[in-house]
Amino acid sequence: MEHSHHIVIIGGGFGGLYAAQSLKNAPVRITLIDRRNFHLFQPLLYQVATGDLSPANIASPLRVILRRQKNVKILLAEVTGFDIGNRRVITCDGDLKFDSLIVATGSANHYFGHDTWQPLAPGLKTLEDAFEIRNRMMRAYERAEKEPDPELKKEWLSFVVVGAGSTGVELAGALAEIANDTLVNDFRTIDPGYSSITLIEGMDRILPQFPEELSASAKKSLEHLGVTVLNGAMVEEITPESVTYKIGDRTERISSRTVLWTAGIKASPIGKALADSTGVELDRSGRVIVLQDCSIQGWRDVFVIGDLAHFSDPDGNPLPGLAPVAMQQGRYVAKLIEGRMKGESKLGFRYRDFGTMSILGRNSAVAMIDGLRFSGWFAWFLWLFVHLRGIIQFGNKLLILTQWAWKYFTRDHYAGFITTNETNESDDDFCKYCGK
Amino acid sequence: MEHSHHIVIIGGGFGGLYAAQSLKNAPVRITLIDRRNFHLFQPLLYQVATGDLSPANIASPLRVILRRQKNVKILLAEVTGFDIGNRRVITCDGDLKFDSLIVATGSANHYFGHDTWQPLAPGLKTLEDAFEIRNRMMRAYERAEKEPDPELKKEWLSFVVVGAGSTGVELAGALAEIANDTLVNDFRTIDPGYSSITLIEGMDRILPQFPEELSASAKKSLEHLGVTVLNGAMVEEITPESVTYKIGDRTERISSRTVLWTAGIKASPIGKALADSTGVELDRSGRVIVLQDCSIQGWRDVFVIGDLAHFSDPDGNPLPGLAPVAMQQGRYVAKLIEGRMKGESKLGFRYRDFGTMSILGRNSAVAMIDGLRFSGWFAWFLWLFVHLRGIIQFGNKLLILTQWAWKYFTRDHYAGFITTNETNESDDDFCKYCGK
Repeated sequence: MEHSHHIVIIGGGFGGLYAAQSLKNAPVRITLIDRRNFHLFQPLLYQVATGDLSPANIASPLRVILRRQKNVKILLAEVTGFDIGNRRVITCDGDLKFDSLIVATGSANHYFGHDTWQPLAPGLKTLEDAFEIRNRMMRAYERAEKEPDPELKKEWLSFVVVGAGSTGVELAGALAEIANDTLVNDFRTIDPGYSSITLIEGMDRILPQFPEELSASAKKSLEHLGVTVLNGAMVEEITPESVTYKIGDRTERISSRTVLWTAGIKASPIGKALADSTGVELDRSGRVIVLQDCSIQGWRDVFVIGDLAHFSDPDGNPLPGLAPVAMQQGRYVAKLIEGRMKGESKLGFRYRDFGTMSILGRNSAVAMIDGLRFSGWFAWFLWLFVHLRGIIQFGNKLLILTQWAWKYFTRDHYAGFITTNETNESDDDFCKYCGK
Repeated sequence: MEHSHHIVIIGGGFGGLYAAQSLKNAPVRITLIDRRNFHLFQPLLYQVATGDLSPANIASPLRVILRRQKNVKILLAEVTGFDIGNRRVITCDGDLKFDSLIVATGSANHYFGHDTWQPLAPGLKTLEDAFEIRNRMMRAYERAEKEPDPELKKEWLSFVVVGAGSTGVELAGALAEIANDTLVNDFRTIDPGYSSITLIEGMDRILPQFPEELSASAKKSLEHLGVTVLNGAMVEEITPESVTYKIGDRTERISSRTVLWTAGIKASPIGKALADSTGVELDRSGRVIVLQDCSIQGWRDVFVIGDLAHFSDPDGNPLPGLAPVAMQQGRYVAKLIEGRMKGESKLGFRYRDFGTMSILGRNSAVAMIDGLRFSGWFAWFLWLFVHLRGIIQFGNKLLILTQWAWKYFTRDHYAGFITTNETNESDDDFCKYCGK
């Protein structure tokens, strides 16, 4: 039997996927549209960037995840606009009519008007971003190994991470561990003494979402690994060989061939397309302002959830762009739609904050759970537990566990190989293999 | 202590890597040059193409494999030529002087003068080839799922493999299994009835390296999986929508959007560069004719091994391009060089043929070992055993075993996701995500 109520969900990230899964037993037809054919477990993406995990460990095909849920169709397509008045979503591959619409297309890297920095300092939002970072990091090591001049060696082994939110801190920690483990073992002419990792943050402390005490503890852990943490430093220029920043009233410059950008996030452009069709208001970062039931002003059947939504908490602050927010909103909206079909109404969405955590390296993390603060080994163990639990639902439990155990004991970054795009002949100022 | 005898090895495939490892305890300095930073376990590459294995399962960084062998330096560089008279190898990154040289750069896809077929029908030699095939296959499924016209649906689900050597047969078998398993479970509007897999071979039987009896048995197994096997068929044209071939005196045409090419192999262009510098003779496929000790005419310290070498067996036939040949030659040349340093001489190289095997799908293979012939389940088990044993040496044993077990029981092609090259803006006649 085909049900008549048609729910279109755009985006197979945490928000969209949870919404779809929560509608498992609802008498509805669901179309889940994504331009990628997989769900990405983004909290572990940095481990693909560092060569610790394979893409398949953190990416699961949407069709595999939703195989048994017969009321879902998956459509691989790019949404190009809306005609909300006629209840239509426009894709690269034709229009779709919806009864309810859930938009969950997330966010992208943001360079605050410095778009020329993008090719110089890749961000970390997509699998391809992770490959790009992995390739740059591995190439930098290879170049350093071949370089006879000690000053240039240091330049190749100088890594700068801009932005000290969770992603930036996790990347900096992982880079430091690679420098400490890999350089000693795998290269002949370089050692950790040549290497430097600098974390640049504009605010006066790292991990600003945590209490000051944990920020301080995280900073100590990173410094112990060999990371130089610069707070209150604003990047002014990025070139292929350096980063210039202002700290206090001084302007300083670090020579570096590998700069990574985790300092800014902007909403997906689908938010703008939705605003064009509905007149809904966007905030400064392009997020869609939503009502307390995650619908948008004037359109009770159109919902925006996750990183794309600007949802005001009781204090008037927007909820942070975290996986748990997206998941809970996905589940909430699913239940709201299902309830409405039975004539039930539902209170507004409330975010339940179970805690926040960031990993800082082998055996070290910071966590805040239900108001309790943890750091060090126990926080690391919590981090591991929560992320394994999270990824179980996407079918890769066994693999990722083996891989982590392997890595923990061997310290091998076994997935650290450099791939090339053999068909791309355009950027050949370099040898495409060694990067020279 | 730095030893004075410097051995340069070009290529980190089976031949080069085995040569390096066999020189572990020799009083020499070794430089292993490769343009890639990893060794690829090529016999399983087709499983990356079908989304069954992750790249990290079959690719290991050379630095990880050779970590503990202190007499080896690895140089990531592309060899551009030779100045053998002055004992020099020329790379993109400067010259290297050698005392002994081992060239093991293998082979590449060959289209017999039809180079325009290359973008239409990718081969399977590199990791990037495997990604390309995986992307095309997954995109074809996605396109078929969206296609309302049953004829076009069939066209999208028609896969043609050209060439029925081991790689072609293994690919065809794996594609058939995917069609049988995945299509039923993961898609809503397509089923195996829409799908067709055609294997085109110019010779009168498949797997010509095996006895006729096993070729016949392999053909039966493939047909049982649903593969159409065409023998004595010569491809005349490939277009984005079709393959035209001549069989007997008829010309026929198959509509297909996904054509894979495993019909030809040519030697790496390094062979030509070596001939330019030494005057050594090449055979018709560009392989370097080597003497019975794997050195080349006139240059007793220059060796060519593996797929790049044309080594005549006692009957005057060249040895086949197989991993065991490369490995044994690598080990032989290593021992030869080590022996010479002690003033010892050594008989010519003799290939010990331990057997050949090809997998035909779940629980089915053909194998010939020491003259004994196997097919079916037992041959499959042998295949699994030999390949697991082979890959153990490269450190991925545990992972690959888990992955295979997982796949065996779930039939999930969990690594089947489509990646894009986000930075490549040139080929956008298509939507880069869904391929339309």
